[in-house]
Amino acid sequence: MSIKRKIINDPVFGFINIPNNFVYDVIQHPFLQRLNRIRQLGLAPFVYPGAQHTRFHHSIGAMFLMDEALKTLKEKGKEITPEEWNGALAAILMHDIGHGPFSHVLEHTLVTRIQHETLSLLLMEQMNKEWNGTLQTAIDIFNDTYPKRFLHQLVSGQLDMDRLDYLRRDSFFTGVSEGNIGSARIIKMLDVKDDNLVVESKGIYSIENFLMSRRLMYWQVYLHKTAVAAEKMMINTLRRARELTLQGEQLFASPALAYFLSNETTITDFENYGEALRHFVQLDDNDLWSALKVWSSHPDTVLSILSEGMVDRKLFKIEIREEKISGERVSEHLQSYRKRFGISEHEATYFVALDSVATDMYDKQDDSIGILYKDGTVKDISKASDMLNIELLAKKVEKYYFAYLRA
Amino acid sequence: MSIKRKIINDPVFGFINIPNNFVYDVIQHPFLQRLNRIRQLGLAPFVYPGAQHTRFHHSIGAMFLMDEALKTLKEKGKEITPEEWNGALAAILMHDIGHGPFSHVLEHTLVTRIQHETLSLLLMEQMNKEWNGTLQTAIDIFNDTYPKRFLHQLVSGQLDMDRLDYLRRDSFFTGVSEGNIGSARIIKMLDVKDDNLVVESKGIYSIENFLMSRRLMYWQVYLHKTAVAAEKMMINTLRRARELTLQGEQLFASPALAYFLSNETTITDFENYGEALRHFVQLDDNDLWSALKVWSSHPDTVLSILSEGMVDRKLFKIEIREEKISGERVSEHLQSYRKRFGISEHEATYFVALDSVATDMYDKQDDSIGILYKDGTVKDISKASDMLNIELLAKKVEKYYFAYLRA
Amino acid sequence: MSIKRKIINDPVFGFINIPNNFVYDVIQHPFLQRLNRIRQLGLAPFVYPGAQHTRFHHSIGAMFLMDEALKTLKEKGKEITPEEWNGALAAILMHDIGHGPFSHVLEHTLVTRIQHETLSLLLMEQMNKEWNGTLQTAIDIFNDTYPKRFLHQLVSGQLDMDRLDYLRRDSFFTGVSEGNIGSARIIKMLDVKDDNLVVESKGIYSIENFLMSRRLMYWQVYLHKTAVAAEKMMINTLRRARELTLQGEQLFASPALAYFLSNETTITDFENYGEALRHFVQLDDNDLWSALKVWSSHPDTVLSILSEGMVDRKLFKIEIREEKISGERVSEHLQSYRKRFGISEHEATYFVALDSVATDMYDKQDDSIGILYKDGTVKDISKASDMLNIELLAKKVEKYYFAYLRA
Amino acid sequence: MSIKRKIINDPVFGFINIPNNFVYDVIQHPFLQRLNRIRQLGLAPFVYPGAQHTRFHHSIGAMFLMDEALKTLKEKGKEITPEEWNGALAAILMHDIGHGPFSHVLEHTLVTRIQHETLSLLLMEQMNKEWNGTLQTAIDIFNDTYPKRFLHQLVSGQLDMDRLDYLRRDSFFTGVSEGNIGSARIIKMLDVKDDNLVVESKGIYSIENFLMSRRLMYWQVYLHKTAVAAEKMMINTLRRARELTLQGEQLFASPALAYFLSNETTITDFENYGEALRHFVQLDDNDLWSALKVWSSHPDTVLSILSEGMVDRKLFKIEIREEKISGERVSEHLQSYRKRFGISEHEATYFVALDSVATDMYDKQDDSIGILYKDGTVKDISKASDMLNIELLAKKVEKYYFAYLRA
Repeated sequence: MSIKRKIINDPVFGFINIPNNFVYDVIQHPFLQRLNRIRQLGLAPFVYPGAQHTRFHHSIGAMFLMDEALKTLKEKGKEITPEEWNGALAAILMHDIGHGPFSHVLEHTLVTRIQHETLSLLLMEQMNKEWNGTLQTAIDIFNDTYPKRFLHQLVSGQLDMDRLDYLRRDSFFTGVSEGNIGSARIIKMLDVKDDNLVVESKGIYSIENFLMSRRLMYWQVYLHKTAVAAEKMMINTLRRARELTLQGEQLFASPALAYFLSNETTITDFENYGEALRHFVQLDDNDLWSALKVWSSHPDTVLSILSEGMVDRKLFKIEIREEKISGERVSEHLQSYRKRFGISEHEATYFVALDSVATDMYDKQDDSIGILYKDGTVKDISKASDMLNIELLAKKVEKYYFAYLRA
Repeated sequence: MSIKRKIINDPVFGFINIPNNFVYDVIQHPFLQRLNRIRQLGLAPFVYPGAQHTRFHHSIGAMFLMDEALKTLKEKGKEITPEEWNGALAAILMHDIGHGPFSHVLEHTLVTRIQHETLSLLLMEQMNKEWNGTLQTAIDIFNDTYPKRFLHQLVSGQLDMDRLDYLRRDSFFTGVSEGNIGSARIIKMLDVKDDNLVVESKGIYSIENFLMSRRLMYWQVYLHKTAVAAEKMMINTLRRARELTLQGEQLFASPALAYFLSNETTITDFENYGEALRHFVQLDDNDLWSALKVWSSHPDTVLSILSEGMVDRKLFKIEIREEKISGERVSEHLQSYRKRFGISEHEATYFVALDSVATDMYDKQDDSIGILYKDGTVKDISKASDMLNIELLAKKVEKYYFAYLRA
Repeated sequence: MSIKRKIINDPVFGFINIPNNFVYDVIQHPFLQRLNRIRQLGLAPFVYPGAQHTRFHHSIGAMFLMDEALKTLKEKGKEITPEEWNGALAAILMHDIGHGPFSHVLEHTLVTRIQHETLSLLLMEQMNKEWNGTLQTAIDIFNDTYPKRFLHQLVSGQLDMDRLDYLRRDSFFTGVSEGNIGSARIIKMLDVKDDNLVVESKGIYSIENFLMSRRLMYWQVYLHKTAVAAEKMMINTLRRARELTLQGEQLFASPALAYFLSNETTITDFENYGEALRHFVQLDDNDLWSALKVWSSHPDTVLSILSEGMVDRKLFKIEIREEKISGERVSEHLQSYRKRFGISEHEATYFVALDSVATDMYDKQDDSIGILYKDGTVKDISKASDMLNIELLAKKVEKYYFAYLRA
Repeated sequence: MSIKRKIINDPVFGFINIPNNFVYDVIQHPFLQRLNRIRQLGLAPFVYPGAQHTRFHHSIGAMFLMDEALKTLKEKGKEITPEEWNGALAAILMHDIGHGPFSHVLEHTLVTRIQHETLSLLLMEQMNKEWNGTLQTAIDIFNDTYPKRFLHQLVSGQLDMDRLDYLRRDSFFTGVSEGNIGSARIIKMLDVKDDNLVVESKGIYSIENFLMSRRLMYWQVYLHKTAVAAEKMMINTLRRARELTLQGEQLFASPALAYFLSNETTITDFENYGEALRHFVQLDDNDLWSALKVWSSHPDTVLSILSEGMVDRKLFKIEIREEKISGERVSEHLQSYRKRFGISEHEATYFVALDSVATDMYDKQDDSIGILYKDGTVKDISKASDMLNIELLAKKVEKYYFAYLRA
C-alpha cells in the first residue's frame, strides 16, 4: 500500500507531518472534514477579524502537540506502544467531532441538554463500526477506560493537548499575542508519575503563566462583550425562528437546519446514528449564515430585525455589571420596543438578554495539575506555587450581562 | 457627534486604528460587512488550513497600508487634503466589494463576462447615492478620473496597497512565511514624481524581492495544484447544477443562489441596482457550501458525486504539464466514467477539466514600477534592475492542467 | 539645518523613526553609543545564546514606546508641549547611561555603594553642560522635579517604558516567547488622572498578565540558575583580581579597568566629571572579557581557574534551596579545594558563593498601578484585581543559592 | 556515563536539542565557546542594532538544520550511519571555528593571505588530536574526502546548512524580515541523486526565492553602505596601528592582538598549533574594541581620529558609484586632510578608502543546484528555472566605493 504522506503548513507550528496512513484516513473522514466548516471561535470574528480558524485546523494542531508530548514522554522512558500512539493521535483528532456550529448558541437553542462530548463519542463509535473496530483504542482513551490513564489526560485534563493548542492558536489568530502560553516549553516538562500526567518542578512558572494567560484569553477573547452580545442575539434569533417554525411558518433553511428547527431532539434521537445524528453531521456554520441572510427580509419584525442585526453587524448593546440588572430597567426596555415596533410583550423579550457568566478556570477537585519534584513527590500546583493564589483562581467570579437592541 | 473610535486587532499588522467616523461608517456598511463572509483565498484552505481570512480583513489591512503610505508621502512634502485622504481610504476599503464568493469559479459559471471591478463600481455608486455624494472623491480615485493620479495608483497599480496587503496577508495565514514581501520597507520608499507613484532607488532590491515573492506565492499558493483541482471541480459542479436547473429541476438553493442558477445575467441586469445586484449582495461562501452539502445526496449521479467530492475533500486528481493533454487521454477517461457510472458522454465531461494557466506577473506596457534616482530621473524597474530579468518575468509561462475524477 | 532623519530597523517593533535632530543628537552622543558595547542581560547569553542585545538597543526601543505612549495620551486630550515631548524622549533614552558592564557584578566588586541611577544623572548633567542646558527638561523629568509627574512615571514607575521595553525585548531575544507582555495593548490603555499615570479599567487583565509575565521572566531568565552561577563566578574573579592588584600584582587590564581594580572609588570621585567618571565611561563588556582571557593563564591558581571558567564556560555548579545552606557543607567544599589545589582557606573561599535572592516584584507602598474606572475613580490594582493576589506578589520569596566550583 | 542532555532556546527555531554527549562535548570545547565572543555580522550592528548574534549561535542553528536535513534524507531512504550523522553534526558545528573577529577586516590587515577555512581545519585537527581521532569522520566530511559526498555538500555547497542558517538568522536579527528564505521548506525538499544533494522539482520556486532573498540580504545588509564604511575605517585603523607598532610604538593591546600587530604571520606560523594559532584562538571582538577605546586618546592624530570614529560612531562617509572614482577627487580629499590636520600625504591616505565590490552569488561552474524531476533526471537550476535569469545572477556586478573622513 502506498504511503499517503502529507505535510500540512501551519502558520502556528510550522510544518506538521501526518505520521501514517491510519492518521491520514482519520483526517480524511467526512466527520473530520466537516470541522473545516465550523469556526473554532464562532462569533469572535466580529471582534477579532483574523479569528476565522476552524475546528479542523485546531484538531490538526492538537494532534501535532500530542505527537510532541508522546515523544517527550518516550524520551523520559515511558512505554507507549504503536497502537497506543495511534490511539492517542486519533482520540485527539476526533475529540471535537461532536461540535455543532456556534456550539454555545446551539446548546441554548436547537440541540439542548446534549453535550458535545456525547455526540463526539457517538460519532467515533459510528466511525469505529465503519472501520471494523480499529478505533477502539482511541475510543477507550477518549472515554478514560484505557488502562494507561495519562493518555486520557493528554486528551482531556487540565493540561491536555486540546487546551494547549486552542489557547496558542486563538492567541495567534486573534492577534492577542500576550496570550501565548508557551506550549513547547510545557510539553518538554511533562512527565508521568503513578500513571498521572505531571509537570517537572522547574516548569512551575510556565504553569502559573499558562493559568494567567488562559484567564487573559477568557476575558479578552472568549467572554469579550461584543462576542457575548453577538451570541445573545444569535440565540434569540434562533429561538424566534424555532417559535415561528413550530407555529407552522415555513422558514428558509437547509434540510439539516430545518430538522432541528422543527424538532425537539433528545439524546435518544441521536443514538444509533439515527435521523438526528445524520442531520447533525450535515449542519455547520454555512447553514446558519445562509438562513440568517434570508430571514433578514422575513415579514416577522422580530426575526427580520434580529437576523439583519447578525448579518450587518448591528449587534445588541451589552452592559456588564457586578450586580444583577434590575427588573425595572428590563421592563423599560421592553416597553420601548413594544411602542417602537408595535409588538407584543412576549415578542419584545427577544430584544433583550440577561445572563450571568462565571469563570471557574481552575477546579481543584476535578482536575489538578501535579508538580513533580526531584525527590519523586508530587504536589498540586495550588500548594506548589508560592505566588499564585489558586483559591482565588478557583473562585467563581460572577458577572452579569444585560444585552439589548440599540435605540 | 460622538467619535466612534475603534481599534482593530490584526495579527499581521498589530493594532489598526479606524481614523474617523467617516471611515468607520464605510466599514460598517452592509456591502463591506458582506466581505466578512467571503474568504480571500476561496478554496485554498483545502491546501492551507490556516488561510481562512476574509476579504473584509484584507480590506481593513489595505486601508492600514494606505494610511501608512499617505503618511510617508506627506512627510516627503506631497500635499494631500483631508478630503483626498479620506477618499483614498474609502476607495481602498471598497475596492473589493464587487467580489462574489469564489470569484474565479463564479466568473466561469454563474456571473460570466462581468468583471468584479465593474460590480465594485456599481456598488460604490449605490453607496454614494445613499450617502448624498460623500463618496464621490473615493469613486473618482478608484476610477482614475481624479486629478492626482498617484492616489489611484495607490489603489490599483503595480505597487498598490491591495497587492501589498494580500501578498503579506496570504503569506501570513498560509504559513508560507518566505512569501513575506516587506510591505513596510516598500511603503517607506514610495514617492511621487510627475504625479506618478515611484520608488526611491535604494528600494530597488525590495522591489526585486517583491516581484519574486509574488511569483513564489503564485505557484506555491494561488496556482497550487490541489487548489486548482478544487476550483475545477467546483466549476463543474455549478455548471451541472445550472444545467439541471435550466432543465426544470428544483435544486436546494438560497434565493440569491437560485437567481443566478436560473438566470443568464448580463451587465444590464446589474445596472441601476436592479434585481441581479440585489441578489448578488446576498450571495457569499455560505450559500454555496450549504447547497453543495444538500446536493451531495441529489439523485443526479453527476451532481451528487461532484458535490460530495467538494464537501468531503475527495477532489479531482490533477496533472500539470508543459504540453497540451492529448485528446486520447481525455477520451479514455470519459469512456471509463461512462462505463463506471452508466452515464452519457456529455455527463462524463463533468468529471474532467482541461485548462492552461499563464502567469504574466509583470506587464511592462500597462503597469511599470518607476525607480526614482537622486538626480530626479525615473527608470522603469526593467531597466533599473541589473539582475532581474523582467523580460522573463513578463513572459507568459503557460502550463496545462488536466483534472479528473479519481478512479 | 538639514534634517538628519533616520529610521532604525528593530526586529521587535519594526521600523523606529528618530523624530527630530535633537533626539538624533542624543542618540549619537558618546555616552549613548557606549551602551552599544554593554549587553542588556550581561551573562544571560550563557543560557540564552540569542540574548546578545545591548542597552543601546533597549534605549531605542524604550524611546519608541515613549513616543507611542505620548501619542496615546495626546489623543486622550492630555496637553504635552513639544519641549516636554522631547524631554521625555531624551530622558528615557538617557535613563541607562550610568550602567556599567555586568551591572550586578560591578556593584558587588569594583563600583560598590553607587547606584547606576546616580551615575546616569551625573552623566546627563555633564551632557547638559556641553549642550548649554537643552537637556534640563529631560533631567527634571528623570529626577521627578518636573511639574507634570506623569512624565516621570513614564520614565520610572511600575509601568514605565523602561520595563515595557525590556520585558518585551528580553522575551524576544531569549526566545521565551510566553513572556510577551503585550506592550502595545497596555500603552493604548494608559491615561492620566490627577497627574498620575493610570490604566483604563478594561486593561486590568493586561496588567495582571504583565505582572505574571514579569514574574516568569524573573525566574526563567533573570534569576536562571546558570546565569546566577556565572554571575557569582564573575564576582569572585573580580574580587580576586582586585585583591592581587592591591597586593601589587600588575594584571593585564585596560586603563579604565585598571583604575577600578586599584582604587576604592566613592561617589565623590565620580562627581564633577572627575577621574572616576572619565574612566567609567570608557569601561564596557569588552574590557572585562579581554582581561578574563589574559588572566586565564595567570600564575595565581585562583584567578586563572576562575577566569578560565568564565571564558570556557566551565561555570560554578549551583544549588537553589528554600532553606539556608549549612556551614558544614561549605566547610567540606573549602577543605576539598584546599587539598586539591594546595591553596589557603582564604583562597578557597573564592571557589564558593552563598546568596539569598528575594523577588519583590510588586511594592504596594512605593509604586502602585492605578486602575481608572469610567466613573473617574481610581483603585490600586491590588484592590481592583479580583483574582491576582497582590499580597502574595508583593511578598518577598527568598531562595538560597549555593554556588561552587565543580569537582 | 550520565547523559548531558540539553535544550537550547533559540528565538529563530524554537527549542534545539543537543542530541548526545559527543555533540555536547564539541559545543563545550573552548574553540567553539570562543565563537560566543565573535559577532556573526561584525560591524553591521552600526546599521542594524539587533544584529548582535554570534558565530556560536549560528553554529548551533546550522547544527539544528543539519539534523533536520539528515532526518529528511533518512525518511527518503538514504542510508546514514550513526557515525556519519555525528560526523556531519560535528563538521557543521566546527565549520566556522577558524573565523577571527571581523573576518573581513582581519583578512585585510592582521591575518592576510590565510583563509578562515584553512584555520578551521587546523583547529579541527588539533581537537581531533586531543580527542584521539574521534573527529576524523567530521574532518573528512568537511574536507570533502569522505565517500558520501552529499554529506560534504550539506556542510559546504550552494544549499549548505551554513547558508540556510545564516541567511535566516541574519534576516531575523536585523529585522529584514522579507529576507526569510524558508529554510524548513527547502530542507523538506532535499534529496540525494548519484551522491549529489538535489532539490525535488516542486521546490524550484523556493530555490528561486532563496537566490533572490540572498541577493536582498547582500545589498540590504552585508554590503550596506554604512557597514562597508565602518569596515573601511576599521581596516585603516588597524593598518595605522600596525604601522606605528612596527615603528616601535607600544600600543595598548591584549597579548593576542599585540602578537598580530607586531608580526607578519604566514600559514607556516599557524601550522602545528604554534604560537600564531595559540594567539589566534585568544583573539576576539573584545580585544579590538578594548584597544580602539584606548587608542582614541593616542597622540598620533591618525590613529586617534580613526579609533574615536569607530568608538563614537563617527564613521567614514561613503559613496557608491557604478564607475571608478577619479584620482582628482581623491587628491582633493587628501589635500584637505593634510591642511586640516597638518599631516603628511601618506598619513592622509588613512582617511580615505577605495574599493570595488562585486557579487557573484551564483557560480555555475563550481556550485550548481540540481533539480530532481520525477523521472529521475536532474537539471541545473539555471536550466530548470523558466524565469530566473541565472546568467544575470552569475554575472559579477561591480560597484565602486569611495569612503572618506567627513568634513
